Amino acid sequence: MKQRQAYCKTKAHEKLLGLSRAPFDLRGEGSLQQNGRLLNYISTSQYFSLHYWTQRVNDEVLAGLQELADECDFVGQFKEMKAGEVMNKIVGVESESRQVLHTACRDIFVKEPCNQSATLQASVELEKLKTFLEDIDSGQIGNERGESFHTLIHVGIGGSDLGPRSIYEALKIYAQEGKEVFFISNVDPDDAAAVLNRVDLQRCLVSIVSKSGTTLETLTNETIIRESFSKKGLDPAKHFIAVTGKGSPLDDPGNYLKSFYMFDYIGGRYSSTSMVGLTTLGFSLGYDQAVQFLRGASSVDYEAEERNIRKNPALLLALLGIWNHSYLHCPTLAVLPYSQALHRFPAHLQQCDMESNGKSIDRNGQTITYKSGPVVWGEPGTNGQHAFYQLLHQGTEIVPVEFIGFKQSQFKKDVEVQKTTSQQKLLANMLAQAVAMACGQESNNPNKYFAGNRPSSMLIADRLTPEAMGALLALYEAKIVFQGFAWNINSFDQEGVQLGKVLATQFLVNIHTKEQKDKGLHQEILKITGIV
Amino acid sequence: MKQRQAYCKTKAHEKLLGLSRAPFDLRGEGSLQQNGRLLNYISTSQYFSLHYWTQRVNDEVLAGLQELADECDFVGQFKEMKAGEVMNKIVGVESESRQVLHTACRDIFVKEPCNQSATLQASVELEKLKTFLEDIDSGQIGNERGESFHTLIHVGIGGSDLGPRSIYEALKIYAQEGKEVFFISNVDPDDAAAVLNRVDLQRCLVSIVSKSGTTLETLTNETIIRESFSKKGLDPAKHFIAVTGKGSPLDDPGNYLKSFYMFDYIGGRYSSTSMVGLTTLGFSLGYDQAVQFLRGASSVDYEAEERNIRKNPALLLALLGIWNHSYLHCPTLAVLPYSQALHRFPAHLQQCDMESNGKSIDRNGQTITYKSGPVVWGEPGTNGQHAFYQLLHQGTEIVPVEFIGFKQSQFKKDVEVQKTTSQQKLLANMLAQAVAMACGQESNNPNKYFAGNRPSSMLIADRLTPEAMGALLALYEAKIVFQGFAWNINSFDQEGVQLGKVLATQFLVNIHTKEQKDKGLHQEILKITGIV
Repeated sequence: MKQRQAYCKTKAHEKLLGLSRAPFDLRGEGSLQQNGRLLNYISTSQYFSLHYWTQRVNDEVLAGLQELADECDFVGQFKEMKAGEVMNKIVGVESESRQVLHTACRDIFVKEPCNQSATLQASVELEKLKTFLEDIDSGQIGNERGESFHTLIHVGIGGSDLGPRSIYEALKIYAQEGKEVFFISNVDPDDAAAVLNRVDLQRCLVSIVSKSGTTLETLTNETIIRESFSKKGLDPAKHFIAVTGKGSPLDDPGNYLKSFYMFDYIGGRYSSTSMVGLTTLGFSLGYDQAVQFLRGASSVDYEAEERNIRKNPALLLALLGIWNHSYLHCPTLAVLPYSQALHRFPAHLQQCDMESNGKSIDRNGQTITYKSGPVVWGEPGTNGQHAFYQLLHQGTEIVPVEFIGFKQSQFKKDVEVQKTTSQQKLLANMLAQAVAMACGQESNNPNKYFAGNRPSSMLIADRLTPEAMGALLALYEAKIVFQGFAWNINSFDQEGVQLGKVLATQFLVNIHTKEQKDKGLHQEILKITGIV
Repeated sequence: MKQRQAYCKTKAHEKLLGLSRAPFDLRGEGSLQQNGRLLNYISTSQYFSLHYWTQRVNDEVLAGLQELADECDFVGQFKEMKAGEVMNKIVGVESESRQVLHTACRDIFVKEPCNQSATLQASVELEKLKTFLEDIDSGQIGNERGESFHTLIHVGIGGSDLGPRSIYEALKIYAQEGKEVFFISNVDPDDAAAVLNRVDLQRCLVSIVSKSGTTLETLTNETIIRESFSKKGLDPAKHFIAVTGKGSPLDDPGNYLKSFYMFDYIGGRYSSTSMVGLTTLGFSLGYDQAVQFLRGASSVDYEAEERNIRKNPALLLALLGIWNHSYLHCPTLAVLPYSQALHRFPAHLQQCDMESNGKSIDRNGQTITYKSGPVVWGEPGTNGQHAFYQLLHQGTEIVPVEFIGFKQSQFKKDVEVQKTTSQQKLLANMLAQAVAMACGQESNNPNKYFAGNRPSSMLIADRLTPEAMGALLALYEAKIVFQGFAWNINSFDQEGVQLGKVLATQFLVNIHTKEQKDKGLHQEILKITGIV
């Protein structure tokens, strides 16, 4: 890997710093209509158009961001990643030292994939999945009584949960008749109990998802579920499948119907298009629609190779984020989908973004002197409008927003009330929010004054289909990766989660060795909290 | 209302400002065990203990915060609010000018409530609800065929949705056999369709919740649902109830089985203990458990009158928040419940907090020169540990955390894995996170270095019961109100949501008057986004 530089070490940085002292003013008569802004500040790709005329940028800033992209060679780095460069590492320090190849999972639509061997491995797993699903449909695979499976319980946590869950929620309208999926993730025993109360175990497949096969929460939940099966006289080995690393403790034909493999060049939070997501999506949507989801993702992976930032929505979204966060100093980012089906997608992005870019050292192991990734949060609109939008409009914290909207609804049930459909109301509201935040409002009543100049983007597609969902996912994955390049950090490890794990284990040892007369910190804390 | 001053106009402020330059250092050998810190930095109330030994405060800071509380008379203001002072107003400016009496809804357990007339009104509604629920149970009220109702669809948005929804989710384990509740809020037609696909309309009650009776999203969803009833040959008037203001368009016995009233002295985001929450909780939990929920809330309302901040968890939580936000300059707050049942509670708090305190003018109509409320966000643990905690531990943004935990699970299904139960694992993880964030970790590997000094609190109760849920809700409501007093803002209006509504209406007019040749901004935006 070539030595890379952070955004603030470039020539473009000086220029952008100057421009950031007087960012484009979105308020007032016609500001949005100046110089064909409304027509020119749209970046279009196959599935989504990125509207950014409500960002505090003008042509000069865009030129500066283009220079930044060129100087840092973001696109070149992205291509190197896709080709199999060892990107998950910190130079000069013990680190994971792995390739980053989530893109290879969906690079199955071209003759010459960017990384042949990883795509080959992905294809082998896809073929296994196809056969497995056919065997379920044909009755070749069924329960003890020869009945088919109609429910799948997906057991994972973090990267093995949020991606598949949010995507399943987004697409479940397209599920095959009678097929349903439930998710268990939390070590909270109430989480498993709530699901187990609702399903008919006889007709359940259970998918245990853990790369290492040692994730405490997942193994604990697996034990709880296996006991439920045994209590009902059912044989877990006839119901359980594993999605795990080759050779992990879960890769065991004695205990599982089937193992699907995940590979160490794909991080959990980037694993939705690997078997982690595909087994569950394949079960519910059917194999063909699951492949359509991959097709959407793959299209964005190639679009993201475009060097002109105005023709590369993923890169542009990343750079607009850099502008708002690193130049205009906004500490958070709200992602607000105007689609109820995407209600869990902000939680997935929160994970993917904050776990990737919530870092304090650069790729050379040096402590960084600038801010890395923002706090990412969000809820679907219009709900949020009746909740936290007060602060977005009139609070003292400026929160940049990324809106996501669709021209058509998923369900065909829509009615006209007061002459417009619900879908039209949804979009009208999204546009209104973007304009209100940008333009603000003068008033003699200080309580009705809106300062404006609150930046946002809108991603708009025709309809939330499996392909569009794949594209949206890949667009955000690429955005996050590009931003990591800009901050010159390793977006692919997560050392920050280790300390908590170690300490939790110490607390647990103190809990179960009750006889211990330890006067140490852990014991004292357990005592004062009333836990032992 | 007496003239009040903001936190930064007090004498205590100067002291706190000085102390904030060197806040207590949580790192290193034994810092948490100094001076009996672990025993002394706990504030106990009937249901919850607030542990704050992982906050960056010492006795001096606590003394400063006590002085601040005394100088600003936070407790006095709180009592005035409960007694019926017109607190929802901006002096010298047209504003809502209303009392703030959500506490009166649950002030039913004493002979002399703080505001007699409001509590009387609440009691009348409670009595109506009790009779209504008895009539449902006895079969006096039923569907066209005389069958009983087993499902309720709650239709509302914002304050009429998030509170009831998150509380129902938290307590549904205690629901009466066979009783189930669904929620529809979003104007997204897919939201209503997804629920209508799952329920048996014949056995459904539908509760339409809107104070004004004019909320566009709610009326649109009501229309969609009424059409579904009519299509099935069912009479909506036999299935629908209204929770609304007296005399609103929804207060109509021709169209609704029953109307329950909400009053203009209770804001939407504070309305969970009014009929907005109680009708739905009463239907699912039964009347008696719903009253237990009120009992928990009421107990906190009285505990919050304690002037010693160390004996008043709600006030102390508020002041610790002021310390982190206004003195240590942390722009966000994460609320992380270690309880899956509370999975939607952070979304409710996000609304309640950000809509209350996301303001830029004070109670005299002056633009404030300091920061008001933070961005509030969160997800349940341990899930979050595998997601965004990377940034909490090693990111460049310091995020104060409020953890919420319980010693026992709600369900009794728990198993020992590796010698501890799931509930013990849950708590051990919560403690571990608080300690890890506070103490950090030295390391020669910069990637394994944890800076520490990241503040948190823990709220711990025995078990998430209806009473404990009521207490938790009231504790946060009081906290938010206290913080509003500190920033000297009106926490009870929401003028910031108006502009978006107005603009949305303008867009909608442009959509349905297609013949219009308007070359204005709205029409141009509708064209470039492809909506018309």
